[in-house]
Amino acid sequence: MQTTLPRALAAECVGTLLLLAAVVGSGIMGERLAGGNLAVALLANTLATGAALIALILTFGPVSGAHLNPAVTIADASQGGIGWSRAAGYVVAQVIGAIAGVMVAHLMFDEPLLMSSTHARSGVSQAFSEFVATFGLVVVIWSVSRRRATVVPFAVAAYITAAYWFTASTSFANPAVTVARAFTDTFAGIRPSDVPAFIAAQVAGAMVATIFCRWLVPSLPADAGDLVVPHGQAR
Amino acid sequence: MQTTLPRALAAECVGTLLLLAAVVGSGIMGERLAGGNLAVALLANTLATGAALIALILTFGPVSGAHLNPAVTIADASQGGIGWSRAAGYVVAQVIGAIAGVMVAHLMFDEPLLMSSTHARSGVSQAFSEFVATFGLVVVIWSVSRRRATVVPFAVAAYITAAYWFTASTSFANPAVTVARAFTDTFAGIRPSDVPAFIAAQVAGAMVATIFCRWLVPSLPADAGDLVVPHGQAR
Amino acid sequence: MQTTLPRALAAECVGTLLLLAAVVGSGIMGERLAGGNLAVALLANTLATGAALIALILTFGPVSGAHLNPAVTIADASQGGIGWSRAAGYVVAQVIGAIAGVMVAHLMFDEPLLMSSTHARSGVSQAFSEFVATFGLVVVIWSVSRRRATVVPFAVAAYITAAYWFTASTSFANPAVTVARAFTDTFAGIRPSDVPAFIAAQVAGAMVATIFCRWLVPSLPADAGDLVVPHGQAR
Amino acid sequence: MQTTLPRALAAECVGTLLLLAAVVGSGIMGERLAGGNLAVALLANTLATGAALIALILTFGPVSGAHLNPAVTIADASQGGIGWSRAAGYVVAQVIGAIAGVMVAHLMFDEPLLMSSTHARSGVSQAFSEFVATFGLVVVIWSVSRRRATVVPFAVAAYITAAYWFTASTSFANPAVTVARAFTDTFAGIRPSDVPAFIAAQVAGAMVATIFCRWLVPSLPADAGDLVVPHGQAR
Repeated sequence: MQTTLPRALAAECVGTLLLLAAVVGSGIMGERLAGGNLAVALLANTLATGAALIALILTFGPVSGAHLNPAVTIADASQGGIGWSRAAGYVVAQVIGAIAGVMVAHLMFDEPLLMSSTHARSGVSQAFSEFVATFGLVVVIWSVSRRRATVVPFAVAAYITAAYWFTASTSFANPAVTVARAFTDTFAGIRPSDVPAFIAAQVAGAMVATIFCRWLVPSLPADAGDLVVPHGQAR
Repeated sequence: MQTTLPRALAAECVGTLLLLAAVVGSGIMGERLAGGNLAVALLANTLATGAALIALILTFGPVSGAHLNPAVTIADASQGGIGWSRAAGYVVAQVIGAIAGVMVAHLMFDEPLLMSSTHARSGVSQAFSEFVATFGLVVVIWSVSRRRATVVPFAVAAYITAAYWFTASTSFANPAVTVARAFTDTFAGIRPSDVPAFIAAQVAGAMVATIFCRWLVPSLPADAGDLVVPHGQAR
Repeated sequence: MQTTLPRALAAECVGTLLLLAAVVGSGIMGERLAGGNLAVALLANTLATGAALIALILTFGPVSGAHLNPAVTIADASQGGIGWSRAAGYVVAQVIGAIAGVMVAHLMFDEPLLMSSTHARSGVSQAFSEFVATFGLVVVIWSVSRRRATVVPFAVAAYITAAYWFTASTSFANPAVTVARAFTDTFAGIRPSDVPAFIAAQVAGAMVATIFCRWLVPSLPADAGDLVVPHGQAR
Repeated sequence: MQTTLPRALAAECVGTLLLLAAVVGSGIMGERLAGGNLAVALLANTLATGAALIALILTFGPVSGAHLNPAVTIADASQGGIGWSRAAGYVVAQVIGAIAGVMVAHLMFDEPLLMSSTHARSGVSQAFSEFVATFGLVVVIWSVSRRRATVVPFAVAAYITAAYWFTASTSFANPAVTVARAFTDTFAGIRPSDVPAFIAAQVAGAMVATIFCRWLVPSLPADAGDLVVPHGQAR
């Protein structure tokens, strides 16, 4: 079954919108209710993000693959799984959707439509955390999507649930998410000046993961059929 | 396998009863034990609601579809998946079951059988939250039930788990649930005067989601075979 | 594949042992670490119990069916799914395993081997809670095991996760568990004098659930093939 | 499909690295954010570890089996499922990966690269806890991998999630994990002098579990095809 490009782009845009609404919205709710206990706020943020990923990848996967993440789209394009011009469209749709998702969260919680974050996330250890976070995410996606694609939504959600806690940066692991979170001065925000290092580390992590997976299982096709979830596409 | 109408209505009624017992009961338990930390109370409420949805949709899905939600039933009827007279029966069964579920929760926790809630949930951002919550829920249901029906119980539970935290209204997303929660003056309650705006926003969200899904995947049949879960039905 | 009776009884005994170790042990750990916040302690207890049920039903299901619960065994026997003499063996194995599990938990946590609980759980609303809890559990088991047996471990775990929070009694829903928990004076305990009312309510809930499910889906065979999980058995 | 030995060793090494990064990193994050509530810190640690296990076993299982645990490798070798020389390679890869994972966690969280833990975990009840924890883990792995291998990642993750709470030692249940955690003086650490008793108890638990499972289901082949997850191997 073929999906037209407009529909695939709509799926990436709306899927990333709902993902960001979930990330930012649950951060606001968690912080408001947690009475100052940041661990409880992050538990809520983690639970909401992981659960949203299960639902969104199951929902939009069959239409666009449910990348919802430029790092994944670029990794896929580097192996020929998606053409570069289509990949560019995906990235634009993801970034637009991500920023729109932040606006939706702000509207729901009576915050200004867009803000400039003051949440500092700088330093080598933060960037290294993003490298590790995205390396792990892309290894999970490449491996599981080429072997057992039906469980990818659960594998990705489980990985991010863990990485929210085991990386010092709470695992953004997604350039579109990173850009959008610069526009919220709430729990999930990131200071705009810290965004470039995050994105560079994320792309590096995705590339190293792709090279590693090409070596680890050479007998598999270079692309994963379709990343993240099998879907019809007009290449 | 055909299910008779009385059995389908019983499934919708008992399923919605147990859903409301879970929502209201876990809210009471959470608030009583959480020592004033509302985030911890909502984590418990979320965990119980999401887990209950998995169990209840798996249990009643094969009998009635496990709509348990008038917004879903109306969306299904709008696409011809269920006849309008049968849909009316479903909605009545859901509302009766929902109110009975509140009574069961109150009996278990030594509360008055029915109360009038004083929990204010008003304003544009609350209604917008319900629009977003129900839009997302119905997109998940339409998409997943037409593509991979066996995982619908997990997709719906995951979505609601996330939406409890990422919407400012804690995602009622269900008119029967909304009506019933007006009868409890506990953690999960809603002031009766706030009910109409919630329901209007929910129905609007469900309708926009249905139109969006019709466009997103036109090659699929208008109805999803059976919503939420495949089941025998005497149309 | 046939399982001999000694092996089935060993599976019921060791499975129930590990279940009680999980219930009682996680209760002790939760209470010790939670600093007086009972909701946090119960969240830990719930997470451990639900997760243990997934693992144990997957593990012992193919050997004995993983009833791990006299109420389930009696419900199964009432429909001819298991002979009454075999059922009696199951119940004895479950009770022995349950008490042994409490002892294992006490040894791990440096508590006396067995204690007499002083945790009061009395009154009509507690008994009604147990009726509701066991009714729901047995409806889930009958329905899901006759329709989609591979997901029973997840359905049962999800249901108990919810019921820990939505019933006022924290959902024992299991006579062997109830008897064994009378032997621990920790978080999970129950005063011996409160045990009979719990067990009576549990058996009543299981019976009403069985009658309801016989009516709800009459076209299905009376027994569920095998409860809770398909397994070879020498009837 | 055959996996070469270097690739299998790489999978064991990188998989165990990411597992330890998850265990140690989430412990640090949990303790830093929890404001002194150890139960909340352990909930975060548990959630991250369980979720990481799902993702990592799904990812590396098809390459090496995703043992990630010398106790599992030794149990497998004892039944002929893996040759002893290959098993030795697995164990070395696991230990190297585990220590590297601790270093990665420390780098992310700005801690010294390696430390000597001062976290006392001594006494008979701690060792008994490790015996119980590993016995349960290996029973789960043997049983589920021989009957329904596709759900092993979920069964193992569920078991460890429960065992973190129901054992007094928080269930290390893994000699490579135990050695590596001696190198971190954070939440997850263990004093080096307490390591030998943990490892002895873990190996004993694995052996008793293996003997029990051989008796419980004799009709099954001695090995589980492949532990933990089916994978190509050059024996």
